[in-house]
Amino acid sequence: MVLIKMQDLGIDTTYSYNIGQEIGVTPEQVRKDFSKSGIKGKRKGGYNVNELLFTINDIFRKNEVQHIILVGLGNIGNAMRQYRGFRKIMIQIVAGYDIDPVKYKKKYSIPVYPMEKMEEVVQELGISTAVMAVPVQVAQEVCNQLVGSGIKGILCFAPVHLKIPSHVTINTICISHELEYLLYKTFNKNRDLDSSGG
Amino acid sequence: MVLIKMQDLGIDTTYSYNIGQEIGVTPEQVRKDFSKSGIKGKRKGGYNVNELLFTINDIFRKNEVQHIILVGLGNIGNAMRQYRGFRKIMIQIVAGYDIDPVKYKKKYSIPVYPMEKMEEVVQELGISTAVMAVPVQVAQEVCNQLVGSGIKGILCFAPVHLKIPSHVTINTICISHELEYLLYKTFNKNRDLDSSGG
Repeated sequence: MVLIKMQDLGIDTTYSYNIGQEIGVTPEQVRKDFSKSGIKGKRKGGYNVNELLFTINDIFRKNEVQHIILVGLGNIGNAMRQYRGFRKIMIQIVAGYDIDPVKYKKKYSIPVYPMEKMEEVVQELGISTAVMAVPVQVAQEVCNQLVGSGIKGILCFAPVHLKIPSHVTINTICISHELEYLLYKTFNKNRDLDSSGG
Repeated sequence: MVLIKMQDLGIDTTYSYNIGQEIGVTPEQVRKDFSKSGIKGKRKGGYNVNELLFTINDIFRKNEVQHIILVGLGNIGNAMRQYRGFRKIMIQIVAGYDIDPVKYKKKYSIPVYPMEKMEEVVQELGISTAVMAVPVQVAQEVCNQLVGSGIKGILCFAPVHLKIPSHVTINTICISHELEYLLYKTFNKNRDLDSSGG
């Protein structure tokens, strides 16, 4: 998270503007959310990064590890299963789901279940968040199943616009899109540099 | 890319506002960039998606496959190596780099070289874009080597702010950050729903 990054960089004070820019919301929204949560700024302006992190962790119950599930144990799903960055932010994948029975028997660090077992595990463990790394073609179907099982937040790697009820939040990471956007920005920057240099 | 998505969805006409929203720039910037590239809107407003895609592909020489390199053949790097989405957007990974000699011998679909061979391949094949999937601790060092080899655009999976010269563009996908942001949005939405319901 952005505050952990700031803490790592030794930044002491941050402003609603900095936070808003990093997470893509307006400074007004940051101040409003903080104020609603009882978080106050410093007298001279800005927020103390360490205090902010402590309060937010407290609100989010981040002193407890948050459990999530993973759907799809293909290439990206496997990378997610082994992703070390989650531990630092107190997130743990506790179960995986796939349609391939071979994967139920593998000695993974997490148990992998058939898709039908989703609701049972989600309800039993009170899980509300899922990472979804499935092919585009089945993304909507899997999304429906997640929502039906009680999931409220989905991190999705399929580059597709999914229909969800209003109480559910989706955050999509589209790798192709990000790479295309990089090519677009690189192309434009170098064209501008070429034309200003000539 | 967003236009391919629109085409897939059968959308005929799009507006600078739609495109800007999808890629995170202002509608004014979209219109300015299009205008600079000689792209004109329809008489009744908006742009024809098919024509737009054709013109942009032409500008970017997208009728030719674009070659990129991949640094880091760990979990995420391996997922990238096998990522099927790149083919659709005419992007092909032509070489991989890793510090682990075991990976040079593996029968991957791409050749994997030691880090020292980076400049040679980049220069020889005229490559300008790289995907970087290396640990945070070495990210700046690898980034410097990429830039020194002639790379101008980097898609980076390490959650760290890298120092780059002004002619280089970086696009960072921070998976932890995206998951934390999802949790933040989900938490806020459900709190708002709870309080409006009670």
